[in-house]
Amino acid sequence: MKLVRFGDFGREKPGLIDSDGKVRDLSGVIADLNGETLAPESLKKIAALDPASLPLAPEGARLGACVARPGNFVAVGLNFADHAAETNNPIPEEPVLFNKAPNCIVGPNDDVMIPKGSLKLDWEVEFAFVMGKRARYVEEKDALDYVAGYCICNDVSERHFQIERSGQWMKGKGCETFGPLGPWLVTTDEIPDTSTLAMWLEVNGERVQNGSMKTMIFRIPFLVHYISQFMVLDAGDVITTGTPPGVGLGFKPPRFLKAGDVMRVGIEGLGEQLQTVVPFKL
Amino acid sequence: MKLVRFGDFGREKPGLIDSDGKVRDLSGVIADLNGETLAPESLKKIAALDPASLPLAPEGARLGACVARPGNFVAVGLNFADHAAETNNPIPEEPVLFNKAPNCIVGPNDDVMIPKGSLKLDWEVEFAFVMGKRARYVEEKDALDYVAGYCICNDVSERHFQIERSGQWMKGKGCETFGPLGPWLVTTDEIPDTSTLAMWLEVNGERVQNGSMKTMIFRIPFLVHYISQFMVLDAGDVITTGTPPGVGLGFKPPRFLKAGDVMRVGIEGLGEQLQTVVPFKL
Repeated sequence: MKLVRFGDFGREKPGLIDSDGKVRDLSGVIADLNGETLAPESLKKIAALDPASLPLAPEGARLGACVARPGNFVAVGLNFADHAAETNNPIPEEPVLFNKAPNCIVGPNDDVMIPKGSLKLDWEVEFAFVMGKRARYVEEKDALDYVAGYCICNDVSERHFQIERSGQWMKGKGCETFGPLGPWLVTTDEIPDTSTLAMWLEVNGERVQNGSMKTMIFRIPFLVHYISQFMVLDAGDVITTGTPPGVGLGFKPPRFLKAGDVMRVGIEGLGEQLQTVVPFKL
Repeated sequence: MKLVRFGDFGREKPGLIDSDGKVRDLSGVIADLNGETLAPESLKKIAALDPASLPLAPEGARLGACVARPGNFVAVGLNFADHAAETNNPIPEEPVLFNKAPNCIVGPNDDVMIPKGSLKLDWEVEFAFVMGKRARYVEEKDALDYVAGYCICNDVSERHFQIERSGQWMKGKGCETFGPLGPWLVTTDEIPDTSTLAMWLEVNGERVQNGSMKTMIFRIPFLVHYISQFMVLDAGDVITTGTPPGVGLGFKPPRFLKAGDVMRVGIEGLGEQLQTVVPFKL
């Protein structure tokens, strides 16, 4: 099942993609796509619906983030062997975790705003997963039972803020609009094997990231297990799992985004995003 | 005004402390203490009520965290000159920021649980503030207009997770029960000057932290301004602002918490917390 949220920012309705690729309105069935409605029993009920019985969403409606604002937005760093190398970091012995501000999440095709004071705005195509159940000290073998689905996240990053402004990475990871999420939340049953998915990112039509889940170091079930040793993951929480090589910071010399640049971001089976970089505005 | 939340975990009601120190039930007036009800206009309405007209809360009711689960829980590190020294860190040139998981927040007198695999459980008395308005690129001179009130946070920390498990601090900062908050949310008008408040923490009756806001490096208005350059702070968000010296990690040799230990945590004007450390349980 491919779930979406459509409509104006902050007022999105839940929907699903029917077999013709059209958005059907789920707002008569559930209030939103969130921790409650992404629970396994709830997803089963939605899957049992006849999409043709649901109203069509307005043609051309904006897509919002494919899940309502989560309680937590956790990210995994340096989780691709070849990306760790390009940023001159060793392969981590265990997952590196950091936070993105939950309110930086936007729709998959919304503008990405250059923050005030930005010097080094960068891109990162990432595979994200959304929790369907509260996870607390989960075993790896049970981990996927806790996951509702998968989506694309562009882990937009400001490298000057992240690396050169004292301390922890989160400073360059949670700026306004830094979390495009979607277009779809694809339920786990649709992609039984995530380990070889292609993932890519283009800037102004040039393919700068051309990676694959094959070079991911720590995989989804292990990450659910691992993160749940350090914090409780609630249903609806979003975890984004790291980027393959080809980020701007890895180019020699480095390349960063400027106003007017367009990012096209895709993962096999999860659709595509399209964002325009826009100047800072108060 | 001293605002509280009382009742069972997850089902707390809002209240306020009357002039006799008793808890009065605000649930007939507002649904909860959150981003909406902590807005300036809402606080004005609550302040205009006659506390004697509100029902008394049940005698001995548990106190919950003094604000509902926030959208973000941001922490400032190494923000006391003498604490940076005790942990062998330089005084930061600008604030160090990290995240605590919003769902680690508990009541001021709830148990603190030792996480599985914990080796170095530590304490940190901190002055926290709660946002009353959405803050985005706020100027320092206007910053306090965006703050609803102040409270104590025990920034409970697992140093092994924080420092020795690859990467970013958040791994040792957001474990379940690591965010006792309260007892009261004290509105900003009650404490016009926060710059000299005494703050302390006792473990089993021994005063291990005996500090003062006097040695704080970056102060509240600057922090609101600073953080709002890197992310949007929403109403209801919680920011905890760093700890004075005397944490377990700073002792020679270091001292850490064990099951049965009792922490008493206080800040002048903000009341006291009392937590018992309990063993890990699934």
